[in-house]
Amino acid sequence: MKRGLLILYTGDGKGKTTAALGTALRGLGHDYRICMIQFVKGPWITGEWKALDVFGERMRIHATGKGFIRNTKDMDRDRAAAKEAWQLAKETLTSTDYDMVILDEVTYLLKYGMVEEDEVCDHLRDRRADLHVVVTGRNAPECLIELADMVTEMREIKHPLRRGIKAQRGIEF
Amino acid sequence: MKRGLLILYTGDGKGKTTAALGTALRGLGHDYRICMIQFVKGPWITGEWKALDVFGERMRIHATGKGFIRNTKDMDRDRAAAKEAWQLAKETLTSTDYDMVILDEVTYLLKYGMVEEDEVCDHLRDRRADLHVVVTGRNAPECLIELADMVTEMREIKHPLRRGIKAQRGIEF
Repeated sequence: MKRGLLILYTGDGKGKTTAALGTALRGLGHDYRICMIQFVKGPWITGEWKALDVFGERMRIHATGKGFIRNTKDMDRDRAAAKEAWQLAKETLTSTDYDMVILDEVTYLLKYGMVEEDEVCDHLRDRRADLHVVVTGRNAPECLIELADMVTEMREIKHPLRRGIKAQRGIEF
Repeated sequence: MKRGLLILYTGDGKGKTTAALGTALRGLGHDYRICMIQFVKGPWITGEWKALDVFGERMRIHATGKGFIRNTKDMDRDRAAAKEAWQLAKETLTSTDYDMVILDEVTYLLKYGMVEEDEVCDHLRDRRADLHVVVTGRNAPECLIELADMVTEMREIKHPLRRGIKAQRGIEF
């Protein structure tokens, strides 16, 4: 029987969501059904959305975020959205509709105290034994690192924005 | 005018090629034409190949490697293949057929002295101004880090193989 892995991409550097997308792509090549929940990104159209659209129902993306939390104008609205998103994540983790679930930037919920870390780790631990899960986000809590089968820290060596280069279409979104 | 970025994913951890695949996916969503040269992987069918096939001519993959260099049975054969692959890379970098070129695990050529690092950096420096390039591989040389616009080090925190978990289809290939 297939063993479902828990993969964690964390750290401050770029490439966490990007690696999750690459993982999704690899799974799609094996006919996986995948659900990606984006906890920070909102429903604006990105390159990855357009490209993943060709996989139809096999690749679902829920962009539940309201933007970049740090610059929010309405923390109450964001908090409500985050709780709703976590509810969706829990349902997705117990559903039998998917072979892989991606929780993109879910660690932001922890940072802002919108969900407890034990709650997140418990639901990941109790998932179906053959379900692959990919989690991304900075500042992953210790329980998540403990629980994960594979953990990579993306460490920032050089960031284009710090060199005065604007975010490039086709690269960053 | 579009500014072509040089993106480098290096370090010992997992996720370098995976992040390059995610970057490709994002570019494909913006109608990029992409060429990926895999310097170590040989022409066996992987999940990413199957999935990327849906993008047809817009996504070309050359898997020029003969396997995992460390365990080679024929270093002369590998060396000849590497030189041929680098020749292909140079032609690809000067071609106008692509918006993005991915040199996957090209740093192995340097490690094994198959190509000089100045040679690699010179060709990357002299590329078309609007060409995005993604480079992956461990032990990136200093000139490449200098040259790159974005560098992320993938640092291994936990590796599934070290936990006795076999490579999983749909995750690692």
